[in-house]
Amino acid sequence: MKGNRMPTSAIRAGRAKTRGMVLNLIRGARTISRVELAEDSGLTSPAISQIVRELIADELVVEAGYGTSTGGKRPTLLRVNPHGRYSVGVHVERNTSVVVIVDLTGRTVAKQTFAGIATMPPGRAIRLVASRVETLLRTAQIDRRRVVGVGVVSYGPQDLNTGVLLSPQPTEKWQDYPIAQRMSEVLQLPVRLDNDANAAAVGEYWLGGVPPESAFGCIYMASGIGGGVVNAGQLYRGSSSNTVEVGHISIDVNGDPCTCGNRGCLENYAGPTAIVDAARAIPRLRRRLGLAADTTDVRAAFALVAAAAAGGDRDARALIEQSARYLGNAAATLTTLFDLDLIVLAGPGFGPATNTYQTVMQYEVDHCSFARRAHPTQVVPSVNGSDAAAIGGAVLVLHGELIAPSPLAGADT
Amino acid sequence: MKGNRMPTSAIRAGRAKTRGMVLNLIRGARTISRVELAEDSGLTSPAISQIVRELIADELVVEAGYGTSTGGKRPTLLRVNPHGRYSVGVHVERNTSVVVIVDLTGRTVAKQTFAGIATMPPGRAIRLVASRVETLLRTAQIDRRRVVGVGVVSYGPQDLNTGVLLSPQPTEKWQDYPIAQRMSEVLQLPVRLDNDANAAAVGEYWLGGVPPESAFGCIYMASGIGGGVVNAGQLYRGSSSNTVEVGHISIDVNGDPCTCGNRGCLENYAGPTAIVDAARAIPRLRRRLGLAADTTDVRAAFALVAAAAAGGDRDARALIEQSARYLGNAAATLTTLFDLDLIVLAGPGFGPATNTYQTVMQYEVDHCSFARRAHPTQVVPSVNGSDAAAIGGAVLVLHGELIAPSPLAGADT
Repeated sequence: MKGNRMPTSAIRAGRAKTRGMVLNLIRGARTISRVELAEDSGLTSPAISQIVRELIADELVVEAGYGTSTGGKRPTLLRVNPHGRYSVGVHVERNTSVVVIVDLTGRTVAKQTFAGIATMPPGRAIRLVASRVETLLRTAQIDRRRVVGVGVVSYGPQDLNTGVLLSPQPTEKWQDYPIAQRMSEVLQLPVRLDNDANAAAVGEYWLGGVPPESAFGCIYMASGIGGGVVNAGQLYRGSSSNTVEVGHISIDVNGDPCTCGNRGCLENYAGPTAIVDAARAIPRLRRRLGLAADTTDVRAAFALVAAAAAGGDRDARALIEQSARYLGNAAATLTTLFDLDLIVLAGPGFGPATNTYQTVMQYEVDHCSFARRAHPTQVVPSVNGSDAAAIGGAVLVLHGELIAPSPLAGADT
Repeated sequence: MKGNRMPTSAIRAGRAKTRGMVLNLIRGARTISRVELAEDSGLTSPAISQIVRELIADELVVEAGYGTSTGGKRPTLLRVNPHGRYSVGVHVERNTSVVVIVDLTGRTVAKQTFAGIATMPPGRAIRLVASRVETLLRTAQIDRRRVVGVGVVSYGPQDLNTGVLLSPQPTEKWQDYPIAQRMSEVLQLPVRLDNDANAAAVGEYWLGGVPPESAFGCIYMASGIGGGVVNAGQLYRGSSSNTVEVGHISIDVNGDPCTCGNRGCLENYAGPTAIVDAARAIPRLRRRLGLAADTTDVRAAFALVAAAAAGGDRDARALIEQSARYLGNAAATLTTLFDLDLIVLAGPGFGPATNTYQTVMQYEVDHCSFARRAHPTQVVPSVNGSDAAAIGGAVLVLHGELIAPSPLAGADT
């Protein structure tokens, strides 16, 4: 086949892919010269010049001073134009919701956290979220024409193609409610629904300096426990994007039934609710921490236990270490199946106990991972902290629109 | 960017990829017209004509009669040319080794099974295997110039880049032995080492009529238990291709230690060795089946238990059902993490008990899979039976050379 006989659709797909790949290289490098871009991409200099010209014209990339000379004249450096595009991330969770606006580098430029929307009727909740988004955009003086879209992230299972949640989470009223479509109608912006933990994984890939070719997993803990895997820059999607549900790894085949249908699910042994219940069952600890018997805000109560453990409380520490050991067992299963270089701990659930989780889980993975003779697997905390899911939701939209289109047809509204 | 400014390396990569994609469509369809190919691929008619011309010139594809007219003249059908290329698969296992030769459709044209090589010094074992390969090629009258290569498959962990096994399996002498390189020197053919269960998954993708866009997992049971996942036609490789080690999913966080370093590994509860040990511990069953206390051929002993269970022996049946329930729990974890449409049971381990395993595991997956509200996950037996790993090893070589190059650099010798 001659070069000029290349099938048209393949050229078009190849061109968009090549452009996304070059933008991703510039993004990952922070600053890079055209010569380095040609080396890293394997493309010719004229091709790089042409693509960079287009990216600059589209305001996605800007020139940013000069690099060090390697003999001749000093090379012009390129970087992503932070103000070229923006994206909105919305995390809908049982206790707390987070809205963020990120720029084209994934950096958060505005953020708001608020409680209680999960218990509202979905229609009212969506109007409230939309008004917060509008206020944030206005306050941060963001040109709406530069907003690529909105990533709404929440629990699985979900139907990404129709943009609905398939479980009675956060409450029964949300099940089968067309959350993506309704929010798009109110905001007049493209909205995509995705899994919060998958989003956190993609956010970490963008902002955590994850090496582009590595296989890494994210374990996300908020009220529940989820996860996501990014392999060589690609989010693992499986059949329907309901993947890596770490909280529902069975760690005991003869264990207690879970609401998901399985037995012995990790979440019921190691998750915030399980730890808070266990803390309440120890009278002296319950008194010390002032845990009410009827607390509904599990995250706040769990934060109390985690802070006490970090502060040296022995009872609290034993509970957190037990939780970490269970999570370490699940992390070993995760890497025994996905063969990971890196496991990132994200979400508000780890909070003040992050160090303990990291240490105990690293020990478990070092001793139990099947591929440890082939390579190590590092356990590290997320760079995105508590807002990892919301930031990830915003980054997923940027990534899907500008770097690599989502492999799931119809995921974009 | 104009079509003729398309970067050269991207065009070249795109062209090989397009050709591989078209060959894969022809392979999957069995027979297909050029018009249907254009529809299925999204390529233009002239592009398809050109690619098909090349594939015919390379003897990869042949014309195969006429299809049904849809108005005009009857379209010429295309199919893969079975005799266009061949590939060799070698499965090195603890008890039994299998050598197969497959044609370009993946069909087995010659096969030999033999015992004992795993306990030989590797050098001698490799010369023996090589002589069996040579004899098979000669007997089947295969032109060596049409042999694409040899896929040697065995246990993980492995280093695919150097072609060595990283564990003392089948015996300590095999650890770090350059198995791929030595076999390539003796046979004067390209040799690639891969994981046996990953190979079985790719073999199933080729021969089992797995829908090209589906996410499917293979659970492979011989002496041990392994697995592989193929998502939208791509084998999931992770960091080092030491993936989906189903036998080392921990099903009990407080369970017994495993030689792998983990605790409560599935293999020690559900694998052939565990079942044979349990059968020996029941005196009446041991006597009925004539199980010697010192049997070293676990696979033969397990086959006796499985056959007795299939024949209605209550003790044997209880053991097999227990094993199937444990495997079902691990299968649920597998699909909760990989979000699978299909789980294929492959390898000699399931043997006469395949029906029981399929039924019990389907029940577990139906009730415990996290994504079951989004879509069902079917559990089915492999079309490749006991030879799935060897056939898969041969198919992996065809797939890597002709459809899509392996993403692991250096995996080809």
